[in-house]
Amino acid sequence: MNLNALQKIGYGMYIIGSHRGKKLNGQIANTLFQITSEPPTVAVSINKSNLTNEFIKASRVFSASVLCEAASLPFIGGFGFKSGRDVDKTKNVNYKIGQTGSPVFLDNATAYLEAEVTHDVDAGTHTLFIGKVVAAEILSDNPCMTYDYYHQVKRGTTPKTAPGYISRKKGGEE
Amino acid sequence: MNLNALQKIGYGMYIIGSHRGKKLNGQIANTLFQITSEPPTVAVSINKSNLTNEFIKASRVFSASVLCEAASLPFIGGFGFKSGRDVDKTKNVNYKIGQTGSPVFLDNATAYLEAEVTHDVDAGTHTLFIGKVVAAEILSDNPCMTYDYYHQVKRGTTPKTAPGYISRKKGGEE
Repeated sequence: MNLNALQKIGYGMYIIGSHRGKKLNGQIANTLFQITSEPPTVAVSINKSNLTNEFIKASRVFSASVLCEAASLPFIGGFGFKSGRDVDKTKNVNYKIGQTGSPVFLDNATAYLEAEVTHDVDAGTHTLFIGKVVAAEILSDNPCMTYDYYHQVKRGTTPKTAPGYISRKKGGEE
Repeated sequence: MNLNALQKIGYGMYIIGSHRGKKLNGQIANTLFQITSEPPTVAVSINKSNLTNEFIKASRVFSASVLCEAASLPFIGGFGFKSGRDVDKTKNVNYKIGQTGSPVFLDNATAYLEAEVTHDVDAGTHTLFIGKVVAAEILSDNPCMTYDYYHQVKRGTTPKTAPGYISRKKGGEE
């Protein structure tokens, strides 16, 4: 079995936002997808150790901003390699409070959606949150960043808490 | 709400294979993603009206072949716009029987995986199958087809049974 084969699965790049009361947070994820069209429903896989997981479980809502190719590594790193427990991720970025109360992050975003959680599935290290889409808007026509583009062109890396992480001991890339 | 925003979510293109006894089938899907790395686990959303859904429910296994950009519209259409109830989709294509007993489709494939279903989530029109990866291999270094490439470059369309379908009456594209 060659787990690097799983790197061939295609994704975009997103900032997933949620809240607990007035506390706001956001994190990078690649694992967002639509699972039904009627009603419009999406799913996202979030590591249980992440603050965003706690916030979605508490508020039962989340936002997703679709990142464009122009999003810089420092911008992505601001959401992806640090915890909202240690830093305020809404500092120095543009966002609005969406209709679910979640922060909708606007910098480098080509579109966003907001969802109300209908199911959460315990998937071991991660929770798979399934949500009905209650808001969605297009923000620009800039090309969307793919996860492949993030790795190949931006030379971005994958944190250990991501679903796609493959450790070196398994013969995979970092 | 502009549901076209959901078209900005990024995907690859896959042939999902499964079986019931010696009966084999495969269908196109874009909604495959990895949800945990340890153990390696993927999820796929399959319309309940599709034969592949019946087969996965019966056998509790599926395969996924990752399609390359070179896959032609007629090739994709052979798996995507007709039912395995009416035609034998294994005719005139190269495949092997994988370790789960599922057909692994090899034409235009850059990689494949096989999975054993651990959860299935009723998502209304679709079932979300979650499976532990038990086999995975890379087949080529050809570029993988994104769902965006399928639409923008190949001028492919989305069938009504797909999670990403948006009807014209909602103001979306076909």
